[in-house]
Amino acid sequence: MYKLYYAPGTCALASHIALEEAGADYKAERIDFKTNQQQSPEYLKINPKGRVPALVTDNGVLTETPAILAYIAQTFPKAKLAPLDDAFAFAQAQSFNNYLCATVHVAHAHKLRGARWAAEESSFADMKHMVPKSMGGCFELIERHMLKGPWVMGEQYTVCDPYLYTIALWLEGDGVDLKALPKVADHVKRMSKRPAVEKVMGEQLAKAA
Amino acid sequence: MYKLYYAPGTCALASHIALEEAGADYKAERIDFKTNQQQSPEYLKINPKGRVPALVTDNGVLTETPAILAYIAQTFPKAKLAPLDDAFAFAQAQSFNNYLCATVHVAHAHKLRGARWAAEESSFADMKHMVPKSMGGCFELIERHMLKGPWVMGEQYTVCDPYLYTIALWLEGDGVDLKALPKVADHVKRMSKRPAVEKVMGEQLAKAA
Repeated sequence: MYKLYYAPGTCALASHIALEEAGADYKAERIDFKTNQQQSPEYLKINPKGRVPALVTDNGVLTETPAILAYIAQTFPKAKLAPLDDAFAFAQAQSFNNYLCATVHVAHAHKLRGARWAAEESSFADMKHMVPKSMGGCFELIERHMLKGPWVMGEQYTVCDPYLYTIALWLEGDGVDLKALPKVADHVKRMSKRPAVEKVMGEQLAKAA
Repeated sequence: MYKLYYAPGTCALASHIALEEAGADYKAERIDFKTNQQQSPEYLKINPKGRVPALVTDNGVLTETPAILAYIAQTFPKAKLAPLDDAFAFAQAQSFNNYLCATVHVAHAHKLRGARWAAEESSFADMKHMVPKSMGGCFELIERHMLKGPWVMGEQYTVCDPYLYTIALWLEGDGVDLKALPKVADHVKRMSKRPAVEKVMGEQLAKAA
């Protein structure tokens, strides 16, 4: 039995969908960002970083989305969520997920989390203003060079797909027009119709209500 | 035969050391950041992101440090550079490397690469001013919760170690005092004495001269 700590609207959605696709026995536990629960002493015992996602396993707690996604893929090999028998293809999938966490998610975070990297209101406004351009640039690269189609890695659906989907859902709010990104737009549509995605989105929305 | 594109002083050092530790047959090719070679049409064909590292393999090019490090560990299992037979332990190592790429490296990048996320000189100055605090915070977490000792994962040397070493070398320039981080300081010392590290550092310095 796994327990996934998440908050709606965060990158934890990727791990949530992956657990569902894997057929894992898990419970999703919502952390309330409005009351800053991620910084509570109880939660910091689970994840000293004060962030989501955190996946509680029988062996201990895992954090960081790409690590959790690869772990789910390796632990549920029958679900075929990563090319586990091909080190190069596995590395390509990991490279995609690393780009999302270290560059794309970071670009997005400058909209509301500027206090991580600066102190002045003028800097926060400047950062916010840059987000459509930086996120747009990231997704242009994804559209042109990374998303093979129909899924990220090509014909095989992998853990890269829920992660891309999760971050692509932020694009409208970040001022990036999906119309200029036809492959990404098609991917979002295709993802939203998967039963696992429908189930997880329904669950996250129901608990948020 | 692998080819690693790197620039001195960048995170590509981690992959360079890992290739050496693995006993891989590789060539290290220096990219000149002073002439902006990473943005040249020739290099963009290799890595459209215009960054280093990029690892050219017989199957294609890989980018993103954590993906390259896991690939090296999986491709050279005899070097025992990751706990390959234990999905949870492997995920812990990956989680450590993901934290370095998505949080720690990003904190450091706000010193000189502010133009990725903002446009005003005042914002760049503000970001620069925050680096000792943000990098200090990251390394306090590493010192307290992540670095098991003597190596990152405990008794076994892994690909996490050259990555931590690479980023720890930036601390002095980032205004973080290593004296407050005894485990990290010990790790840097221990790393600097490894033959693979001495060889790679020597090679990077000789080519930079």
